[in-house]
Amino acid sequence: MDKNIPYKTYLEESEMPKQWYNVRADMKNKPAPLLNPATLKPMTAEELGVVFCDELVQQELNTTDAYIDIPEEIRDFYKMYRPSPLVRAYCLEKALGTPAKIYYKFEGNNTSGSHKLNSAIAQAYYAKKQGLKGVTTETGAGQWGTALSMACAYFGLDCKVYMVKVSYEQKPFRREVMRTYGASVTPSPSDTTNVGRKILAEHPGTTGSLGCAISEAVEVAVGSEGYRYVLGSVLNQVLLHQSVIGLESLAAFEKLGEKPDIIIGCAGGGSNLGGLISPFMGQKLRGEADYRFIAVEPASCPSLTRGKYAYDFCDTGMVCPLAKMYTLGSGFIPSANHAGGLRYHGMSSTLSQLYDDKLMEAVSVEQTKVFEAAQQFARIEGILPAPESSHAIRVAIDEALKCKETGEEKTILFGLTGTGYFDMVAYQKFNDGEMSDYIPTDEDLAKGFAGLPKV
Amino acid sequence: MDKNIPYKTYLEESEMPKQWYNVRADMKNKPAPLLNPATLKPMTAEELGVVFCDELVQQELNTTDAYIDIPEEIRDFYKMYRPSPLVRAYCLEKALGTPAKIYYKFEGNNTSGSHKLNSAIAQAYYAKKQGLKGVTTETGAGQWGTALSMACAYFGLDCKVYMVKVSYEQKPFRREVMRTYGASVTPSPSDTTNVGRKILAEHPGTTGSLGCAISEAVEVAVGSEGYRYVLGSVLNQVLLHQSVIGLESLAAFEKLGEKPDIIIGCAGGGSNLGGLISPFMGQKLRGEADYRFIAVEPASCPSLTRGKYAYDFCDTGMVCPLAKMYTLGSGFIPSANHAGGLRYHGMSSTLSQLYDDKLMEAVSVEQTKVFEAAQQFARIEGILPAPESSHAIRVAIDEALKCKETGEEKTILFGLTGTGYFDMVAYQKFNDGEMSDYIPTDEDLAKGFAGLPKV
Repeated sequence: MDKNIPYKTYLEESEMPKQWYNVRADMKNKPAPLLNPATLKPMTAEELGVVFCDELVQQELNTTDAYIDIPEEIRDFYKMYRPSPLVRAYCLEKALGTPAKIYYKFEGNNTSGSHKLNSAIAQAYYAKKQGLKGVTTETGAGQWGTALSMACAYFGLDCKVYMVKVSYEQKPFRREVMRTYGASVTPSPSDTTNVGRKILAEHPGTTGSLGCAISEAVEVAVGSEGYRYVLGSVLNQVLLHQSVIGLESLAAFEKLGEKPDIIIGCAGGGSNLGGLISPFMGQKLRGEADYRFIAVEPASCPSLTRGKYAYDFCDTGMVCPLAKMYTLGSGFIPSANHAGGLRYHGMSSTLSQLYDDKLMEAVSVEQTKVFEAAQQFARIEGILPAPESSHAIRVAIDEALKCKETGEEKTILFGLTGTGYFDMVAYQKFNDGEMSDYIPTDEDLAKGFAGLPKV
Repeated sequence: MDKNIPYKTYLEESEMPKQWYNVRADMKNKPAPLLNPATLKPMTAEELGVVFCDELVQQELNTTDAYIDIPEEIRDFYKMYRPSPLVRAYCLEKALGTPAKIYYKFEGNNTSGSHKLNSAIAQAYYAKKQGLKGVTTETGAGQWGTALSMACAYFGLDCKVYMVKVSYEQKPFRREVMRTYGASVTPSPSDTTNVGRKILAEHPGTTGSLGCAISEAVEVAVGSEGYRYVLGSVLNQVLLHQSVIGLESLAAFEKLGEKPDIIIGCAGGGSNLGGLISPFMGQKLRGEADYRFIAVEPASCPSLTRGKYAYDFCDTGMVCPLAKMYTLGSGFIPSANHAGGLRYHGMSSTLSQLYDDKLMEAVSVEQTKVFEAAQQFARIEGILPAPESSHAIRVAIDEALKCKETGEEKTILFGLTGTGYFDMVAYQKFNDGEMSDYIPTDEDLAKGFAGLPKV
């Protein structure tokens, strides 16, 4: 081990970020605005305020301020589980026999099991400040729902979670954690909303999807006095809050006198990847430093690598604004054998623009390779990773092995977004040799593209 | 918040303990030795070496060296998940409105979900050093089995876990984590051992017990070339390894210029409590400082508060040495409605002696009160605690509320041993209002005492 670099680097509390970083301020090509699906005009603050909290709407629309203060109440909550460690993966490096230096920023040391809490607490804070009674949301694997339940319990807000039915049934323990934090959890689609009843009538056997759960949660928020809807990914505001991951990473690297060459993150809607890379991307955009950024997505849901860059619906019920993003179409649902998370059909508008501008790369990986990396990492580094996070591990290992071939001493940073304690059904499949891969055919994708709106 | 005290205090890696502390060296009344059940004479190193690794036998018998070096390989592994944070529970203090200062040492930030890894890695290291092929053990709730699986994966040792059948069936995900780390997991009692077959024949419907799983694991270790048995609690060697918890806590308090008045830990076999209090107890034994120590046990398995201080069997099959301890008798099994862990019938000999010498207090608490504290803590401090750990939370809250009444500004330290992610069946019972309490009658206890050996 390098004597000057500890296994884990923690910032002092006094060194924690006091402002979030808004990468849009440094982007020459700004992400395209959200459109009103009825008028096809950019959504106004007033229109967005029906669905979202007022201050979050301001953050959503703010493309000019590079730094936005983190309120003290949120910083105090952050102190309960942050700063998160920047870890030097000495054991993994040794096992791979690579000259590369591998670092990971570990966001799993909190009860939500992931980075999602960084934005959940911010969104709950602004809801409370606005005097709301509660918030609604959707959750798939359950990390976001758990994070929001924790945040709402902290501020005394009601929390209504619509959980994709297949997850609700397969993950009773996730549900129970949310209930322990006082949230109500409804399997989606449900008969509690118009959109849910419609979907149930059209597809009686459906096990649900994120897009459908979003539609239900939005409908309930808009129809209930004192409620707003909150979302755990995709939106600009979420990437803003998640920038705390990248800001801490950057500060830790500066403290160590090191600098990453390659920065790797898994990408579903983009919350973790966007948060991790933002401050580094800012340096690149301002010409202060250069980095390779790699987004990793599942081969079964390849929005960046095989999607179209177009305006699309964010939800199945088409009640949300249209977003311009790399998308597979809001009707696209990954194959049922996909166990690895990152199932959203689209990608954050900000990341989509950066990708389109060739400032970021993207690769897709098959899930059996992802779980091989997960198992290897667990055994060597002692942390059982979430399937989502393991996409980044896979590519970090692949890049480190390339360095072994070339002899290059590159410094690799990847985001370890969370832990896999609630994903043991997927691990069991892998342990039993029953996991398979699925790559959608061009025909499969064409069906999703056919549903894109004409904008 | 006190400006000089952060929410979380981490030692630097360079400040981490390089030696374990052996509290027996400072005890005037040493814990009673293990006895050979056949001869009733103290077990020799040679006899113990049939079951345990050689170097661990030396540690087990060492009552004179106050400090024992931690090998560098173990310290390197510790650096992957340690130092653990000493957390100031500002939010809990505020919610309770207490003048007390509450601190907890959080051992849950690793994949085993508990402090058990501290001893697992040490025991696996010595097994590897001795050139063994593998180790056997038992596990109840699964924290120890998970920790040992992780440690064995790291050193490339085979790991055979006998898991109490009721847990094996109720906690398939725990089992799957162990399998992910390469361990084999067998429900106990099983037909793979003589003692297992005997117990199955006598009690065909039994769901197993820790004492029975120990017997099976010991039988397999003794009967297999290149294997030894390892245990996650009760033994002196385990308390020695776990002293890293207390040593880090002591160092962190010194760094902060603070000192606890009351130190609280949950107690099943005593591994966490013994590890947490050891260095503080050493100061008390040497007359350098004074502290109140409180062991917290479940009302349904009250070995310290209602047990006898006597020689007893450590296991159901009576294949292990006899240990002098506070015990309910090796035949005692807590009521089936008990969901809160800490089910072992006896208590570490070292802690038993300290308790008998009135150097430590003990209280028992009912499980509904424990889960109330768990839920309250989860919502306020953001960590979902293990049921075991929540026993300590309960009493820490009670002591803080006493301070509120008296106005005393006491400093309370408790051990937060782990997380409850795999205990959601118990939480669900509590959330649904279906959890009840059980306190054994004197008659129930008399049955257990009747099985005590005549020594």
